[in-house]
Amino acid sequence: MSGKVYLVGAGPGDPDLLTVKARRVIDTADVIMYDALTGEDIVESLPQGTTVYDVGKRPGDDGHRTTQDEINQKMVAHARDGDTVVRLKSGDPTVFGRGGEEAEHLADELVRFEIVPGVSSMLAAPGVVGIPLTHRRLASAITVITGHQDPTKEESALEWSSIADTVTAGGTLLILMGVSKLSQNVDRLREQGVPADTPIAMVEKATWSDEAMVTGTLESIVADADAAGIAPPAVTIVGDVVSVRDQVADQLLRDRESSIAATGTAHPTTAPDGTVLPRSPVLENS
Amino acid sequence: MSGKVYLVGAGPGDPDLLTVKARRVIDTADVIMYDALTGEDIVESLPQGTTVYDVGKRPGDDGHRTTQDEINQKMVAHARDGDTVVRLKSGDPTVFGRGGEEAEHLADELVRFEIVPGVSSMLAAPGVVGIPLTHRRLASAITVITGHQDPTKEESALEWSSIADTVTAGGTLLILMGVSKLSQNVDRLREQGVPADTPIAMVEKATWSDEAMVTGTLESIVADADAAGIAPPAVTIVGDVVSVRDQVADQLLRDRESSIAATGTAHPTTAPDGTVLPRSPVLENS
Repeated sequence: MSGKVYLVGAGPGDPDLLTVKARRVIDTADVIMYDALTGEDIVESLPQGTTVYDVGKRPGDDGHRTTQDEINQKMVAHARDGDTVVRLKSGDPTVFGRGGEEAEHLADELVRFEIVPGVSSMLAAPGVVGIPLTHRRLASAITVITGHQDPTKEESALEWSSIADTVTAGGTLLILMGVSKLSQNVDRLREQGVPADTPIAMVEKATWSDEAMVTGTLESIVADADAAGIAPPAVTIVGDVVSVRDQVADQLLRDRESSIAATGTAHPTTAPDGTVLPRSPVLENS
Repeated sequence: MSGKVYLVGAGPGDPDLLTVKARRVIDTADVIMYDALTGEDIVESLPQGTTVYDVGKRPGDDGHRTTQDEINQKMVAHARDGDTVVRLKSGDPTVFGRGGEEAEHLADELVRFEIVPGVSSMLAAPGVVGIPLTHRRLASAITVITGHQDPTKEESALEWSSIADTVTAGGTLLILMGVSKLSQNVDRLREQGVPADTPIAMVEKATWSDEAMVTGTLESIVADADAAGIAPPAVTIVGDVVSVRDQVADQLLRDRESSIAATGTAHPTTAPDGTVLPRSPVLENS
């Protein structure tokens, strides 16, 4: 009898933001395969005795990285052995995470699968810091891209022009995985006429214990993010909704400990004795 | 001692797609205030002995509808009495649901609050029927609007032009609450140059026991939706990602019973003896 594969959204990182269903299929799976961006606390909460693969693609692992082909083969092989496989993807499985391609591969191989939606960081990162995605007075549209939009693509010019127009028209722009190309992306928005004083926030590792954030304007954010030490992975929010945070922050509670720094250094880079501290090697999803 | 308010995302409707945290705060709240679009099964699962308000805005309730002011006042009054209040909003609380405005009101009144993100129907509706929001080959941007975009707004022309451009550039467009103005919105996209053969899907009441869906093209969808009896609330997905469903549907499993109708009548409107059956009075969020 053949097994099945659940393509499961792990949410932004806090195990409390797994769905009830995700928690249940994780706790009853035979095999779990998780991504680099899956929250550390979620990884720690995976059940003992389950076969667990870290298929994250990390740099500096001495060439040890799992390719997409290997991931596909592993899912299919386990399902054919009759296993219930949880393919755990950070955020929602169909948003910038190759969930669609994995579903296609499973279907091509006649492996039964189910998609379990999750709380994408595009929702969680703004939400937990008090930034609504839409607002009756401020924003009635949302556009979501990654910072890795391929500039060699034919559609790219039209894409940036239309993306900039949605912001200028009052929409909220969310850039996932946008730290390494922040400067280029800010330049593109400016070139396309988005005003220099448009508010921006960046939320690093939303809901993780070492969450950090910074706010600024389109003009200042590159320097602000640099000064605050914002590192991947982060969600960038562009638009007037960012200003709501200022209004509500004093009454905003958080259940989890977090090192939210509205300004200043997000992560210490030197110990009190001057030693340079290592940064965690989390890479942005590609 | 004053209480607090949780602005909680209820997800698309299936209680299994509540987050672990949402489930816990619901089960321990003193007061729960829920919306019209909160899933019936979730409403049934609310704990006994908790003060529960249905603050949904429904038509035909003999003028009995809770205004936004009344909702705001009720949240504040209960919090001042020391209650833990769960303000349960379908989907995610900050997406087209006035979560931002409610947060502002609470902050103005010095009431402490927390935002608990949820699985928006913008993620769940496509996902559970096998449509990824992005795809390496097909779509690298997502735009989300409501079908109720106000056409009298100054930004509206620019908005529709930029929205159409994102689709033409290969992005995925999601229209929430887009049933009643489907025909007008399709016309606007066509006027702005979106090709007639662009694939579209509509998913009504995603993850509810009476979920229904229909697929078509920009040219055919108005007739298709009509023939299938698609009614509010529904999520409309426009773009090439819709075609992924055709490739994967044969292997796509669903845990819950549902009346997915790829074509045909979503809801019976007449009983076998010819009696006209009532439709449920769910209204689209405004």
